[in-house]
Amino acid sequence: MRKLIAGLRQFRSSYYSTHRDLFEQLAHGQKPRVLFITCSDSRIDPNLMTQTDIGELFIIRNAGNIIPPFGAANGGEGAAVEYAIHALGIEQIVVCGHSHCGAMKGLLQLGQLEEQMPLVYDWLRHAEATRRLVKENYAHYEGEALLEVTVAENVLTQIENLKTYPVIHSKLYQNKLHIYGWIYMIETGEILAYDPETHSYVHPQSQLLDTAQQDLISDAAHGNVPPVA
Amino acid sequence: MRKLIAGLRQFRSSYYSTHRDLFEQLAHGQKPRVLFITCSDSRIDPNLMTQTDIGELFIIRNAGNIIPPFGAANGGEGAAVEYAIHALGIEQIVVCGHSHCGAMKGLLQLGQLEEQMPLVYDWLRHAEATRRLVKENYAHYEGEALLEVTVAENVLTQIENLKTYPVIHSKLYQNKLHIYGWIYMIETGEILAYDPETHSYVHPQSQLLDTAQQDLISDAAHGNVPPVA
Amino acid sequence: MRKLIAGLRQFRSSYYSTHRDLFEQLAHGQKPRVLFITCSDSRIDPNLMTQTDIGELFIIRNAGNIIPPFGAANGGEGAAVEYAIHALGIEQIVVCGHSHCGAMKGLLQLGQLEEQMPLVYDWLRHAEATRRLVKENYAHYEGEALLEVTVAENVLTQIENLKTYPVIHSKLYQNKLHIYGWIYMIETGEILAYDPETHSYVHPQSQLLDTAQQDLISDAAHGNVPPVA
Amino acid sequence: MRKLIAGLRQFRSSYYSTHRDLFEQLAHGQKPRVLFITCSDSRIDPNLMTQTDIGELFIIRNAGNIIPPFGAANGGEGAAVEYAIHALGIEQIVVCGHSHCGAMKGLLQLGQLEEQMPLVYDWLRHAEATRRLVKENYAHYEGEALLEVTVAENVLTQIENLKTYPVIHSKLYQNKLHIYGWIYMIETGEILAYDPETHSYVHPQSQLLDTAQQDLISDAAHGNVPPVA
Amino acid sequence: MRKLIAGLRQFRSSYYSTHRDLFEQLAHGQKPRVLFITCSDSRIDPNLMTQTDIGELFIIRNAGNIIPPFGAANGGEGAAVEYAIHALGIEQIVVCGHSHCGAMKGLLQLGQLEEQMPLVYDWLRHAEATRRLVKENYAHYEGEALLEVTVAENVLTQIENLKTYPVIHSKLYQNKLHIYGWIYMIETGEILAYDPETHSYVHPQSQLLDTAQQDLISDAAHGNVPPVA
Amino acid sequence: MRKLIAGLRQFRSSYYSTHRDLFEQLAHGQKPRVLFITCSDSRIDPNLMTQTDIGELFIIRNAGNIIPPFGAANGGEGAAVEYAIHALGIEQIVVCGHSHCGAMKGLLQLGQLEEQMPLVYDWLRHAEATRRLVKENYAHYEGEALLEVTVAENVLTQIENLKTYPVIHSKLYQNKLHIYGWIYMIETGEILAYDPETHSYVHPQSQLLDTAQQDLISDAAHGNVPPVA
Ligand SMILES: [Zn+2]
Ligand SMILES: [Zn+2]
Ligand SMILES: [Zn+2]
Ligand SMILES: [Zn+2]
Ligand SMILES: [Zn+2]
Ligand SMILES: [Zn+2]
Repeated sequence: MRKLIAGLRQFRSSYYSTHRDLFEQLAHGQKPRVLFITCSDSRIDPNLMTQTDIGELFIIRNAGNIIPPFGAANGGEGAAVEYAIHALGIEQIVVCGHSHCGAMKGLLQLGQLEEQMPLVYDWLRHAEATRRLVKENYAHYEGEALLEVTVAENVLTQIENLKTYPVIHSKLYQNKLHIYGWIYMIETGEILAYDPETHSYVHPQSQLLDTAQQDLISDAAHGNVPPVA
Repeated sequence: MRKLIAGLRQFRSSYYSTHRDLFEQLAHGQKPRVLFITCSDSRIDPNLMTQTDIGELFIIRNAGNIIPPFGAANGGEGAAVEYAIHALGIEQIVVCGHSHCGAMKGLLQLGQLEEQMPLVYDWLRHAEATRRLVKENYAHYEGEALLEVTVAENVLTQIENLKTYPVIHSKLYQNKLHIYGWIYMIETGEILAYDPETHSYVHPQSQLLDTAQQDLISDAAHGNVPPVA
Repeated sequence: MRKLIAGLRQFRSSYYSTHRDLFEQLAHGQKPRVLFITCSDSRIDPNLMTQTDIGELFIIRNAGNIIPPFGAANGGEGAAVEYAIHALGIEQIVVCGHSHCGAMKGLLQLGQLEEQMPLVYDWLRHAEATRRLVKENYAHYEGEALLEVTVAENVLTQIENLKTYPVIHSKLYQNKLHIYGWIYMIETGEILAYDPETHSYVHPQSQLLDTAQQDLISDAAHGNVPPVA
Repeated sequence: MRKLIAGLRQFRSSYYSTHRDLFEQLAHGQKPRVLFITCSDSRIDPNLMTQTDIGELFIIRNAGNIIPPFGAANGGEGAAVEYAIHALGIEQIVVCGHSHCGAMKGLLQLGQLEEQMPLVYDWLRHAEATRRLVKENYAHYEGEALLEVTVAENVLTQIENLKTYPVIHSKLYQNKLHIYGWIYMIETGEILAYDPETHSYVHPQSQLLDTAQQDLISDAAHGNVPPVA
Repeated sequence: MRKLIAGLRQFRSSYYSTHRDLFEQLAHGQKPRVLFITCSDSRIDPNLMTQTDIGELFIIRNAGNIIPPFGAANGGEGAAVEYAIHALGIEQIVVCGHSHCGAMKGLLQLGQLEEQMPLVYDWLRHAEATRRLVKENYAHYEGEALLEVTVAENVLTQIENLKTYPVIHSKLYQNKLHIYGWIYMIETGEILAYDPETHSYVHPQSQLLDTAQQDLISDAAHGNVPPVA
Repeated sequence: MRKLIAGLRQFRSSYYSTHRDLFEQLAHGQKPRVLFITCSDSRIDPNLMTQTDIGELFIIRNAGNIIPPFGAANGGEGAAVEYAIHALGIEQIVVCGHSHCGAMKGLLQLGQLEEQMPLVYDWLRHAEATRRLVKENYAHYEGEALLEVTVAENVLTQIENLKTYPVIHSKLYQNKLHIYGWIYMIETGEILAYDPETHSYVHPQSQLLDTAQQDLISDAAHGNVPPVA
């Protein structure tokens, strides 16, 4: 605790004093452009790894970067999603898993959690779609490879869950919201981004090139046109 | 999104390349010493404001830094608390509210949320103890002052809620866990810390002096002695 | 009731006596090929309108052909879905809404239900994604046109919800499950089927032509290939 | 799916074209006289077996024809019951179980479901009263006989559950609602109907004779007289 | 509190000292014969009004002597019912309402509770069957008469709810459990007991005469005979 | 039942006839001064053991004198607490456990309850904080001593839970509510009262001496002063 308190003072004398204008401006309200959903894991610092300033990322953090389907939980996830989309008008969501995730390790050995960590056990039920997919389709994987695919699939499960939220369902229909799936590799500090075209994770830079084209496609697909004439 | 992706690259070439050892070490596991619970608000960066490195803070973030009482919610809060205490052995918790909190503003005008943001409305039920206390005891407050006292009381409500968790109840009994209540002032970059002795928020530095003494007191109070001989 | 009992006798002497073999065979077990989800509305008879024999359709019926997201309800919907996919090995699901649906009418005037039909009110929460989408995107519609688009969008909402179920999530990944969205037009006895290519409802015959091609596409998209190499 | 689509066309050219008047009339609204609650099992076709036209039966179908007690579930069952009684003014309910019911088989070997079909496991909790009664009173039964008595008792359990619904409680008090318990025998195509007088299942025709007498009895029993003068 | 503490001492020197044997015997275990369910109202003392000794009544007390249907609540009611029947082998249950019940008054003006006493409001949902019955059938009642009939009907509603509990369902089937409905009249100290034969409340003494006969009847009705031969 | 009915008559002719004035007065409303929360155990009679008259204690009784944290249950406990504090203005609460408590015995062998008494099993989850504390801190205890410490700690757990209720949180802040922890010793008829100063249970008489002093202390601690100036 001493270290934290010393840090607070240092923060004031260094970062704060050089960004005083930013702080005063932010006191009048936040205008974040991205909802960033990631794990509680101490090795992740969203602002640091995206080199964003304070005020740019609205952040949800829990064990396993899980968003239960709409109506499936009364925790803080749904409220924060709703607030981000409806009150703040955010139009981009990143769901960011990470390598060596303890929650995903727990998901792979669920039975052992019930007695010692019953709340974690209950919580991981919201990642049951991940667990079943992995169990039924990657029975031959093990160790690091199994964990890696679990992390990767879980990001996609949670994106599926996000789509059941009314605020998101409606914004997606209007083509005013984009959801990105990321994996943060702790050992290399790199991000892998999900590419729906190829159903694989790629370096995010490669995606930048296709954006215009991709938007045309999704325009065509959805198009804000009533499905029944 | 382009900006974020550019940031990722910059992070790799700057921070990561100068901390490569830290990253490699962290890939083997996290050992955070503090569970830091704060709001999703984009203006807060726990690592930045405490000047801590990655790996030091296990972080829960939701709208309003709320922790529902044990059993009252099946969201990610309880699971992350349990994981932090039981699996990671964390012995210090900070509940950190902040000035100008949108969730707390919502709590003060709850009726208006029900139609537009029903999930936020439901979520704020877990801060009902804050709302009732403020309504019954600060009827004469308004505007900024009312919001400020709401933020301050809500931190204390959530600490009360934390005490109902089995893992916390047991660790507090052993005197192996400390819970701190903080308010982050966005405009000044300062922290106010709750002082249970005087039931008021003070500058955290002033608390450092009393720590030894305070621990003696709480030893006496609990003492790991069976209450029935 | 007299009429029903008379009908039972007539059924025995007509249909049963001419299909005795089928009944004896079915007594040994069911092997339905389709999970058919539709409204409780008395004007719908799934077997009649698809001219299928008994034994061919496993059927869920409730008010509004709603399937709450995984974990959002503890009613019979999830159990029947799970049983159909896991125990019966069904590989095709039809979600079938219908014109003049009373549940969808209720959804459009939700406020009026709370006092008189509180359970219907609560139940329609699982169609809130439909309601919000319609409210935010079809504000200029009214009457029959509004109801029609609500029915059509609700079928798509429920398909989205279905995707959050672990058994479905895993089967979709393996490309072993297809989900179809239908609207039954009571006045004409016709079906409109959702076409994901054009995001519109079309006559189902027109879809038959594309099936082979469509499967190729979805193969490519998913392909049972791990997303992280 | 091809077969279904072919069936749709055939339905239009046969049944629909000979019942065009009925369809047009039904487009203006439904007036079913019976709420029919039965299993999702593909071998059951309520309209076929009662030889009723479309428009006559309002139908709830789930695994095991279960209606959780009022307040015990937030699935579609309660909403459909409420809608049937309150909005449609239905005055007759049939709860129809059936021989060889897979859900009831599951109830008799509940422990095996938890891992593979957790949602079915949870759902069958609403038939726990059936399970306990059978376990404590039919310990000496096994095989077909055990399954048969389980199916029979479960119909009665669900009727008991139905009585806890406010809309039903009030209508029963007014003697304006009748609830019937049926078992459909797949192998013979016959119905057995529960007879409360003898606490046994009998051929429904035998019940028709007693109806006038029976109603007199229940009039006396309830009689819409305040219980406290 | 002083008064209570003085009372404790007086209890020891009077009642305890004259019943020392009873207390020593009870220290080895309880063998109550009746589960007594009544309101939390301070004007009720079950042991006093039935002149029973300690050890004779297992007691559940909450606001409005409500027992939610099986599965509808996770409060203490179901657990205490289950413990009484299964662990203690109790074979008689009394549900005892009372005149001037504040909870029933609340039920009649439910709307006013939502803001000030939200938990009471939620709790009374389990008496919604009472409220609807009274509203639809006693619209012409008011004041004391309305409250009286509400209290009387609520006892019957809760008996209906009790029947949905597995342990009760099974014991009733074996004819090994009897449930009694009582109203305690605070002003006269009298009990009115529900008589299912006449669907009215009568003086309980008048019921004692019929008991043998009544048991014969229920034997015939249930008889522990399988409903399907 | 005969005995109870005989008791009712005796009650009328003895206690009632000598307290007629009290009954008439109480018919106009209750004014209890204490909310008394205790176990359903038949060996406890709160009015008898405190030698209080009817009208003095508002009583909640369930298995194990458990009060789930705010929001954690929808049973009668929260409603009765809210009614007692808000509607009746009660300012003193006693949570009273007792020796030889069957519910606490169950808590110590939880695994055995799941199959036979699933509702008791679920209910005891609200005493999980007690169970964990005892398990982690009294591993070396067994038999009577273990049960005794469990009873004692459970009273404190439930007091912690009570503090999460909005009505209680606000009244404690105003220093207008006191909560007492008691253990009733069945074999001796004595009460032990929790003393927060020494974290031990003592004879309640010894506490009376300190009351004035104690209130001063809690005044200082809370003091109805806004925590943020
Ligand atoms: Zn993680
Ligand atoms: Zn905030
Ligand atoms: Zn419909
Ligand atoms: Zn079945
Ligand atoms: Zn009462
Ligand atoms: Zn006890």
